[in-house]
Amino acid sequence: MIRSAILGASGYVGGELLRLLSRHPAIAATRLFGDSKAGQKLGQVHPHIGGSLAALEVERFTAEALDGIDLVFAALPHGESQKWAEAILASGAKLVDLGADFRLHDPQDYAKWYGEAHQAPHLLDRFVYGIPELHRDAIKGAQAVAAAGCYPTAAILACKPLVDAGLIDPASLIVDAASGVSGAGRAVKEGTAFNTVDGSFAAYGLLNHRHTAEMEQALGATVLFTPHLAPMTRGILATCYGTATRAMAANEPLDALRAAYAGEPFVRVSDDPPATKWVSGSNGAVVTARYDARTGRVLALGAIDNLGKGAAGQMVQCANLMFGLDEAAGLSAEGVFP
Amino acid sequence: MIRSAILGASGYVGGELLRLLSRHPAIAATRLFGDSKAGQKLGQVHPHIGGSLAALEVERFTAEALDGIDLVFAALPHGESQKWAEAILASGAKLVDLGADFRLHDPQDYAKWYGEAHQAPHLLDRFVYGIPELHRDAIKGAQAVAAAGCYPTAAILACKPLVDAGLIDPASLIVDAASGVSGAGRAVKEGTAFNTVDGSFAAYGLLNHRHTAEMEQALGATVLFTPHLAPMTRGILATCYGTATRAMAANEPLDALRAAYAGEPFVRVSDDPPATKWVSGSNGAVVTARYDARTGRVLALGAIDNLGKGAAGQMVQCANLMFGLDEAAGLSAEGVFP
Amino acid sequence: MIRSAILGASGYVGGELLRLLSRHPAIAATRLFGDSKAGQKLGQVHPHIGGSLAALEVERFTAEALDGIDLVFAALPHGESQKWAEAILASGAKLVDLGADFRLHDPQDYAKWYGEAHQAPHLLDRFVYGIPELHRDAIKGAQAVAAAGCYPTAAILACKPLVDAGLIDPASLIVDAASGVSGAGRAVKEGTAFNTVDGSFAAYGLLNHRHTAEMEQALGATVLFTPHLAPMTRGILATCYGTATRAMAANEPLDALRAAYAGEPFVRVSDDPPATKWVSGSNGAVVTARYDARTGRVLALGAIDNLGKGAAGQMVQCANLMFGLDEAAGLSAEGVFP
Amino acid sequence: MIRSAILGASGYVGGELLRLLSRHPAIAATRLFGDSKAGQKLGQVHPHIGGSLAALEVERFTAEALDGIDLVFAALPHGESQKWAEAILASGAKLVDLGADFRLHDPQDYAKWYGEAHQAPHLLDRFVYGIPELHRDAIKGAQAVAAAGCYPTAAILACKPLVDAGLIDPASLIVDAASGVSGAGRAVKEGTAFNTVDGSFAAYGLLNHRHTAEMEQALGATVLFTPHLAPMTRGILATCYGTATRAMAANEPLDALRAAYAGEPFVRVSDDPPATKWVSGSNGAVVTARYDARTGRVLALGAIDNLGKGAAGQMVQCANLMFGLDEAAGLSAEGVFP
Repeated sequence: MIRSAILGASGYVGGELLRLLSRHPAIAATRLFGDSKAGQKLGQVHPHIGGSLAALEVERFTAEALDGIDLVFAALPHGESQKWAEAILASGAKLVDLGADFRLHDPQDYAKWYGEAHQAPHLLDRFVYGIPELHRDAIKGAQAVAAAGCYPTAAILACKPLVDAGLIDPASLIVDAASGVSGAGRAVKEGTAFNTVDGSFAAYGLLNHRHTAEMEQALGATVLFTPHLAPMTRGILATCYGTATRAMAANEPLDALRAAYAGEPFVRVSDDPPATKWVSGSNGAVVTARYDARTGRVLALGAIDNLGKGAAGQMVQCANLMFGLDEAAGLSAEGVFP
Repeated sequence: MIRSAILGASGYVGGELLRLLSRHPAIAATRLFGDSKAGQKLGQVHPHIGGSLAALEVERFTAEALDGIDLVFAALPHGESQKWAEAILASGAKLVDLGADFRLHDPQDYAKWYGEAHQAPHLLDRFVYGIPELHRDAIKGAQAVAAAGCYPTAAILACKPLVDAGLIDPASLIVDAASGVSGAGRAVKEGTAFNTVDGSFAAYGLLNHRHTAEMEQALGATVLFTPHLAPMTRGILATCYGTATRAMAANEPLDALRAAYAGEPFVRVSDDPPATKWVSGSNGAVVTARYDARTGRVLALGAIDNLGKGAAGQMVQCANLMFGLDEAAGLSAEGVFP
Repeated sequence: MIRSAILGASGYVGGELLRLLSRHPAIAATRLFGDSKAGQKLGQVHPHIGGSLAALEVERFTAEALDGIDLVFAALPHGESQKWAEAILASGAKLVDLGADFRLHDPQDYAKWYGEAHQAPHLLDRFVYGIPELHRDAIKGAQAVAAAGCYPTAAILACKPLVDAGLIDPASLIVDAASGVSGAGRAVKEGTAFNTVDGSFAAYGLLNHRHTAEMEQALGATVLFTPHLAPMTRGILATCYGTATRAMAANEPLDALRAAYAGEPFVRVSDDPPATKWVSGSNGAVVTARYDARTGRVLALGAIDNLGKGAAGQMVQCANLMFGLDEAAGLSAEGVFP
Repeated sequence: MIRSAILGASGYVGGELLRLLSRHPAIAATRLFGDSKAGQKLGQVHPHIGGSLAALEVERFTAEALDGIDLVFAALPHGESQKWAEAILASGAKLVDLGADFRLHDPQDYAKWYGEAHQAPHLLDRFVYGIPELHRDAIKGAQAVAAAGCYPTAAILACKPLVDAGLIDPASLIVDAASGVSGAGRAVKEGTAFNTVDGSFAAYGLLNHRHTAEMEQALGATVLFTPHLAPMTRGILATCYGTATRAMAANEPLDALRAAYAGEPFVRVSDDPPATKWVSGSNGAVVTARYDARTGRVLALGAIDNLGKGAAGQMVQCANLMFGLDEAAGLSAEGVFP
């Protein structure tokens, strides 16, 4: 078994990684690192984890702890993996990082959107930005992958083939997306309290959400991004609008998606607009698109589970590629429905 | 007391009207008309209605039933009020119609978006299109009002002052909105079953939702409208995007909203993006807007309760105006929060 | 207008009181007291409150602040109103207290269930325990009322007439109840985070929930009480089981409820088991009961909104009685449905 | 691969079976039978199913269709598997039936609780009643298993060891349980519409729910059972009350559960009261219990996913045993949390 360590094991992404690895045929969760919950047993931290995993203890991370570890999954707040990346890479372990630290190629972009200087700009080119469907070969050969964020994954999967096919003017993109509440992380706050969110729908982060930069970089586009909080635990739907570069058949964008994702095990191209629940609890994604002759726009939609294809599932998919395993090992595309 | 009849009394809008009228100081729910539930007691039809109202019987509508009625609230599927409007107007009663039949001034627009010829085009100019904040004087003097739909109310309240002030290019509007499930009405179907919707977010009606026509007419704009179903019972949030006509201060759109709604009892202009729950169960609306210098766009948001300001509340507000009552009689702006 | 002060104005019960008083014909919310949010404007604290109320500031309470106040609503954590009751009563103001401090007549019961000595036992007999339907006359003449808690209100309304009629063995009561999350208050914690609660149902407080004492006192019974947290914001359903004292007709318990609540504006006796949503957002309650010949038990159910009839609504109803107002002023029995 | 047929493939249990079998190492979903959706592709029927399974067609069942089938999973309304059991058994296929038809050993019990005579009483003794943890050996050797129902599984897992250990008076049992809405099946009706259920909690089936008979048979007890509908898609929590047969240590019931389920891969014994979400989407169950000296009662709780351990998961677990496979093949105990 490949011995993996999880940094950020007590968060929601950590918990989902543990769930996935508990049935992974080739990767084991060997050591678990966390900060605020260090010293607690996993069973106290994650109530869905039973069995032998529950007896593992959350440890405080040190570089020495990497001894004997083949693979590091990092699911930390931004700014944290910058501190540890050098030591991890030096240890020889492979690294799949879900944080924002190594996603933006230009450290100036990081400084602009995250409001602080990057602490390890010399490591940026060691990381492959990662959505397996779009960067499979690079991921296979990488020691370090910066897995794409949740909103970007949904939007990029829906739009990238359309931009690449020249159907959308890249200067015109609007991404309007809704996320389940788990996307806001596990820290307790009034904005994610049940009573605040239940029965409510709201936008947040107007004009300046940090995932904008990642979408712009991956799509080579200018993006106006509006995230929303929906009263559900999991799921992201990105509804994307672009100005069409020319008149086209209504289904030309859909055909472009079909061509791009033919044979992909986790991305389904759908005639109908997808619901997030179709892929809830899974690593699946569903995309659709069409051209609107009336307004001259292309509409593209992408649905994922923010903790699945938008986080832990994608991390495992990247790791599978990096270690030459079956890309789908330990993963499923079928959502827990209903 | 003003004696009102409700057509469509057994639907959700009918139930909300009954709740509002049960404490209205000047308008009584006197006769209740329905189709599929005719013959049932109101208490069987609406489990939230108790007391003496519960003993009223849902009747099948005939024109004779209007005898002694001062006011008709119609909450019927489109195509239905066309059949009854002539008789109602002839009876001398005032009419507040929530259906789509008399909202579009041009019968060709009705035919185009609803797929059938209008049956009473000669009556179209008897109706005032109605959002009280925007058409107060016309509503005061009207015998018949076509109250605005739920999605249009949210979008128009957010955008109309910005279009009127020349801040948004009217050819560029995108309205991306999410609605609670009660907006789909009371007919049971798999798409609105609890198991389908709970924990899920989805778009529907891509490119051709009928409310597009109403938004375009009211705003004098071209609109690409994408509705979404959110896992909540009530509430609409419209997130609207338009190309700015010029560079401006970030808050210029917000200031335009403040100027437009100063003194309004039901429309609040907020610095922060609103959550639908702030106005759930009420006739309130909250709007905000800002200019994004980076992309040259104006973003405007409007939140309402689709059954409140988007339906029954707005109908009562219109009726209050038509009868010279306190505009706020029987209504509140404060949502049931949390 | 009666000038009222709210202690605990920034909590959920405080917010609901403000919503109710915003349309109360005779009681105004004049001064607002809070602790952690002192100094903030009401509009920041309660996003559903707009208009002129939003500009009021939350103040830190002092006894001097009672000057000119006719009525105090206290919605504080247990242990707090013990500190202020003497000063409030001395000021001549009437007091409706929702805290637990003055509900239990015997200070030893308070010490036993709340784990600390009562600080003002000499004031206990100044308080009338209050559910208006059961203690109306005493409330009318009282200066101070200890309004019943949320779980007890649901259980007592369902069971009290059955115990009084001798249909249930009072030594045998089991109360199994589910509450919406707002019953846990506004303090943020992981147990009431959206992601924890959404899609989940759990029991808590096994064997020793403090509301047990209040039920036992009001019913003159021994009660085993199990509260549950349901994934909804508002509502309590109490499902109560007692050993029947004798064989009886299946509907004898239902008839006893009908007799007890005939003419009550807020308590409805239903043939069918009630759903909490029937009374959500209102001061209504629905009860039902039946005898099970097969097992020799009586089953009784009560549904309320924990923030309505279980808190703020009941407080206003008590205040209406204490001031000789229409008991239903500012209140409704119809839930916000759907 | 073992070739399985699913009867009732278009319902929720059918969909969950398909999800589980899509990653089962030894059992394939080979033929799919349904009634109302016969002729449709699986991808139309179950939106969460993609890939090659989506292209399978739902067929109308005939006995000839069993040719080449090794295993039949039946998830049909009660009364249906009585019609097909003889032919299935004659074909030599093994049968896991989730319907009620063959759970009650005495055909008179079936007639009493289901209101109709049993059509195949001669086959009753061909079926083993099935909860693997309690009837493992019998299931291993059986051709036909009547898998336990959802409510009974939760209640029996929690109570059976306590009754067997003589801690609970079997004449005194009360089972108060809440279920997610998927337990009501996929047929659309107003009672399970999103708008009816969201934000609401209600009891139903008072005194006479059919699962009572199954609990009584399995526990050798008299049971008063009250089911409730909770606003969630999946999950059952059974809260069970029994009179203690004697005074005992508070943890003696918990210790009895620990002894009974030591080493079980899917049943966890918890100190704390479980939440249904801990096992949502999985085949896990969590139970707890304690003795209440104050009232002389034993309290026992069991949590499962009604579609997992309460239906499809349990069916697969039974099939694994019947075919000598790893009992946990294709199953997990970890819930999709949060």
